[in-house]
Amino acid sequence: MSNHHTYKKVEMVGSSTTSIEDAINNALAECNKTLKNMDWFEVTETRGHIVDGAVGHFQVTLKIGFKIENS
Amino acid sequence: MSNHHTYKKVEMVGSSTTSIEDAINNALAECNKTLKNMDWFEVTETRGHIVDGAVGHFQVTLKIGFKIENS
Amino acid sequence: MSNHHTYKKVEMVGSSTTSIEDAINNALAECNKTLKNMDWFEVTETRGHIVDGAVGHFQVTLKIGFKIENS
Amino acid sequence: MSNHHTYKKVEMVGSSTTSIEDAINNALAECNKTLKNMDWFEVTETRGHIVDGAVGHFQVTLKIGFKIENS
Amino acid sequence: MSNHHTYKKVEMVGSSTTSIEDAINNALAECNKTLKNMDWFEVTETRGHIVDGAVGHFQVTLKIGFKIENS
Amino acid sequence: MSNHHTYKKVEMVGSSTTSIEDAINNALAECNKTLKNMDWFEVTETRGHIVDGAVGHFQVTLKIGFKIENS
Amino acid sequence: MSNHHTYKKVEMVGSSTTSIEDAINNALAECNKTLKNMDWFEVTETRGHIVDGAVGHFQVTLKIGFKIENS
Amino acid sequence: MSNHHTYKKVEMVGSSTTSIEDAINNALAECNKTLKNMDWFEVTETRGHIVDGAVGHFQVTLKIGFKIENS
Amino acid sequence: MSNHHTYKKVEMVGSSTTSIEDAINNALAECNKTLKNMDWFEVTETRGHIVDGAVGHFQVTLKIGFKIENS
Amino acid sequence: MSNHHTYKKVEMVGSSTTSIEDAINNALAECNKTLKNMDWFEVTETRGHIVDGAVGHFQVTLKIGFKIENS
Amino acid sequence: MSNHHTYKKVEMVGSSTTSIEDAINNALAECNKTLKNMDWFEVTETRGHIVDGAVGHFQVTLKIGFKIENS
Amino acid sequence: MSNHHTYKKVEMVGSSTTSIEDAINNALAECNKTLKNMDWFEVTETRGHIVDGAVGHFQVTLKIGFKIENS
Repeated sequence: MSNHHTYKKVEMVGSSTTSIEDAINNALAECNKTLKNMDWFEVTETRGHIVDGAVGHFQVTLKIGFKIENS
Repeated sequence: MSNHHTYKKVEMVGSSTTSIEDAINNALAECNKTLKNMDWFEVTETRGHIVDGAVGHFQVTLKIGFKIENS
Repeated sequence: MSNHHTYKKVEMVGSSTTSIEDAINNALAECNKTLKNMDWFEVTETRGHIVDGAVGHFQVTLKIGFKIENS
Repeated sequence: MSNHHTYKKVEMVGSSTTSIEDAINNALAECNKTLKNMDWFEVTETRGHIVDGAVGHFQVTLKIGFKIENS
Repeated sequence: MSNHHTYKKVEMVGSSTTSIEDAINNALAECNKTLKNMDWFEVTETRGHIVDGAVGHFQVTLKIGFKIENS
Repeated sequence: MSNHHTYKKVEMVGSSTTSIEDAINNALAECNKTLKNMDWFEVTETRGHIVDGAVGHFQVTLKIGFKIENS
Repeated sequence: MSNHHTYKKVEMVGSSTTSIEDAINNALAECNKTLKNMDWFEVTETRGHIVDGAVGHFQVTLKIGFKIENS
Repeated sequence: MSNHHTYKKVEMVGSSTTSIEDAINNALAECNKTLKNMDWFEVTETRGHIVDGAVGHFQVTLKIGFKIENS
Repeated sequence: MSNHHTYKKVEMVGSSTTSIEDAINNALAECNKTLKNMDWFEVTETRGHIVDGAVGHFQVTLKIGFKIENS
Repeated sequence: MSNHHTYKKVEMVGSSTTSIEDAINNALAECNKTLKNMDWFEVTETRGHIVDGAVGHFQVTLKIGFKIENS
Repeated sequence: MSNHHTYKKVEMVGSSTTSIEDAINNALAECNKTLKNMDWFEVTETRGHIVDGAVGHFQVTLKIGFKIENS
Repeated sequence: MSNHHTYKKVEMVGSSTTSIEDAINNALAECNKTLKNMDWFEVTETRGHIVDGAVGHFQVTLKIGFKIENS
């Protein structure tokens, strides 16, 4: 058995009308449809667009790390 | 009609006793009194002061982009 | 009486299963057991680990500034 | 006469369908309607949106420095 | 219908013998063969190699954001 | 009465033939003519031009934060 | 024949119990199973976890650039 | 005798009503009460608060490196 | 039992005449005398001094994260 | 024959009244008078001064890498 | 006559027992022995070593820009 | 005798087929042919090119500081 693993990071932007945490979970839920072994995330940018003078959507950029199968 | 627009960014600090999202919306609400056409925001700093060993206020610095009228 | 003060910053990582704000307050609560005069905090990193395709814990790195006693 | 001057920087986003240089000049032309004494610019971000698989608009963020009148 | 979307960013390096803008469009054209819904790009690095004391190729690194289908 | 405030930051460049501290105070003095409630500053760049092989002017870029009236 | 090429960068994390160089080569070996034309790498982060007060694994984040086939 | 040493860095904020240099020395003097073997410092931030339109205090953040005893 | 933990990061500089990895392990060994629960490290700077035109010591700055007891 | 080479980087600022690309080539042409083996460049800053409300000169800072002779 | 100029930047570290400004001027004075046409400087790092618990020398890293002769 | 010194930093890229440490020493050995008084180095970038799916050369960018003679 190998004594090391390799991980890949992908960069996603999740959005939400309600909160930063919800935007993160929305991105994770989307990735969870196709990625296995998601392990950690890192927020790299928090922004959003504005509608009628208030937050329309929070847009959170995050890197998601997952283990390569059989690595 | 012009095929391009010009935007300006201003840098604001919103605060809130309850959440980061609320601090962002407080800054937007304040700017909405005088700025038209607010389009997007970018969070550049998240900090706060501490009262009795807990968060007193969240202080969120954000840049707000808005379209210049008639640009 | 001195006309200036000296502060120290320590770097902590708080975690929470529910929110970024809660992770910050958890770190402050832990530090409050041993540090006096905590004055402000600065968020330097937001990340987390993923469990079953969703956020397991938010992990928020923050610097906490406090006044040195009698400085 | 004073032996020093004070400058202000404002942050603008110019856009153009054709080039980065044109986006910069579009932002300057817009500011020139209201600002006097524009002296220098610094590009801080270059991005754009994509239409039909090609650049739709270049969007260039720049800081513009100008001298405060009578400073 | 969902009230939010998820985007992915990929990092590409386009090159051109003539201009920075052309290098960007070359990268977009290449991605357009396999990616749908390309929405925006962000330039993160501009460099090139030198041939006979002049620019041989401009090499522009850019992140390209595109909407995840059905997200 | 509101339990939160909103601040704006403006970016200025002060100059001085004698010192960095003096360049900061020159920028503050100039802003003080038109801004109320200036609260803090952050130095973001220190540079200068050179005359006859010595410092001609120190040029200090600083962000100045001030409270929005009635926020 | 085209006079330019397009490259893609992917971000990987390699690990090793013995050295930083070995962690880099482990990540490359894993990618080599599925990627052709790997051309260069850039180290963006070096970290690791600690076991019994010593390095357990070095974890090296790197971006790997490879040429797009037929670009 | 060991052929290597280990150092620790602590992050302090010194303040002064008069100068940046004085703020640095005030932080060093405070640390000198409890730290031995202070060896070097690195300025990481220069800011201050404003009183009556002028600098009230310079606040300088610095990292101080000192050798661990017997390392 | 709490469902979250708090960590502290300290910043150390390890040195070695032979390798970067050795400098990291030297810093960890030194901290291991007084810190429990060391969990991870992050390299933030790699430098060294030069003796007779070759590396005298590698000096590696790293942040070490450890769990606060009973947090 | 050595199996490795050593390169040096120098930092130049090229200028042009017409374009960013031209400013880069102007800097390269100037360096080409005295440097051999110029291999690659990296743009680190793009700015310019403003004349009559439009770009006077583009000023592009670039690092130029060249192989040391016989290294 | 050419309508553009080329500049070179060199990176120096000046030191002084008394002030940051003096360290800058010391570096300029040293360069002035061999460089013509020094035009501007940019401070990139401020640090120093500590003697007996106080600043021994301020060490200021600066980039100095000068015009290439006949460029 | 002067109570201060001036240093210059040059930026080099060393390479090696075997290790990061070796790439650093190769750059120092090359500079040692022409530079006196080399004092310290700072690693600013670690990268390499890939041959047959493995590291071909490590390429390490470093700044080398050396004292100006008689400064």
